Amino acid sequence: MSTVAIVPAAGSGQRLGAGIPKAFAKLAGKPIVEHAIEALADSEAVDQIVVAVPPDRTDEARLILGSAVTVVAGGSDRAESVRLALAAAGEPEFVLVHDAARPLTPPALIARVVAALGEGYGAVVPACEVADTIKVVDANGAVIATPERSGLRAVQTPQGFRTDVLLRAFERAQPGVFTDDSSMVENIGAQVQTVDGDPLAFKITTPLDLKLAETLLADSA
Amino acid sequence: MSTVAIVPAAGSGQRLGAGIPKAFAKLAGKPIVEHAIEALADSEAVDQIVVAVPPDRTDEARLILGSAVTVVAGGSDRAESVRLALAAAGEPEFVLVHDAARPLTPPALIARVVAALGEGYGAVVPACEVADTIKVVDANGAVIATPERSGLRAVQTPQGFRTDVLLRAFERAQPGVFTDDSSMVENIGAQVQTVDGDPLAFKITTPLDLKLAETLLADSA
Repeated sequence: MSTVAIVPAAGSGQRLGAGIPKAFAKLAGKPIVEHAIEALADSEAVDQIVVAVPPDRTDEARLILGSAVTVVAGGSDRAESVRLALAAAGEPEFVLVHDAARPLTPPALIARVVAALGEGYGAVVPACEVADTIKVVDANGAVIATPERSGLRAVQTPQGFRTDVLLRAFERAQPGVFTDDSSMVENIGAQVQTVDGDPLAFKITTPLDLKLAETLLADSA
Repeated sequence: MSTVAIVPAAGSGQRLGAGIPKAFAKLAGKPIVEHAIEALADSEAVDQIVVAVPPDRTDEARLILGSAVTVVAGGSDRAESVRLALAAAGEPEFVLVHDAARPLTPPALIARVVAALGEGYGAVVPACEVADTIKVVDANGAVIATPERSGLRAVQTPQGFRTDVLLRAFERAQPGVFTDDSSMVENIGAQVQTVDGDPLAFKITTPLDLKLAETLLADSA
């Protein structure tokens, strides 16, 4: 039973505004993606790590990440990067897909995802209750609906899949349609199960998120 | 044209685990609610502030908050507290309802909400894009659906209302059903408009949120 963790880190991450791909922005002196990979490497549930980076950054990534991590050139979108990474991974039983921008993901969360796969679920996502009320809006910002908050969850990563389930989902997915891997699995009618997420697994999207991550890393140093 | 800001702060806030109401937990040496009220007091768009606190904390709140703020005893739920606060507010044209747990809300956000009310919208909420994919789950945590993320917004506060619109919504609302004021307005078929929120207006829900707020306040001190 083997588990490969894939980190698609080929995106541009404009929202941080640093002019470099988000995954390569510095956090406590190291690229964000390096922190994310350390969490995966620390997890006993993960046997292999494959990272997809911008094609012009493969050499830099190999230098930074060392030989324990397989580096591949990413594709034109997230799903394509996952596909290319998976092709470099051999034939694992389970695949985890992890955001490079979640540098503080606790090993216990990773273990929960893999444990649920071991129990037989074909697709597993860590998820938290949402703090804010969520509204559905139209193109002009007018509110269309307010879904019942107690039935909503904010999904984190790593998302875990039985490899055959993820491959089947990829075969059927139209290019560019899905920004979320588990949605592709839902799209083929397979079940996706949530397990408890963790506030520490937050995604770095804004400068405020980066600030929080810096503070937490300084505290634990 | 007058605007009253209401802060319902009578809730128990168990998720912070401090054993005291969340609004009264300390942040940089002051109760969280005091920070939230300072932001409202700093806004030129707000003419009057009314705070609803637990009935056994009215004296303490008056002492902390001083004479510029009207303190009332809160009700058994959030909507009831808003109603009691509004009854103490005279007859304002606009009502803002603000979470006590959003201590770093920027004045510019408050100004955007009031400006949109001035343009004629009957109900206005500040809102941000969601960072995480949102899933709808069943009682067992199985995923039912993934709403398209680009059409979702996470709603912050203050939420703004023309007073007559909010009063009409209250008249029709069943007790205890709504945790979100603007949902009551949607329920009577009135339009709710979003304006740009701000990451700084985040709600303190977890100890991690409290940590971020502490850091940001320390930086600005």
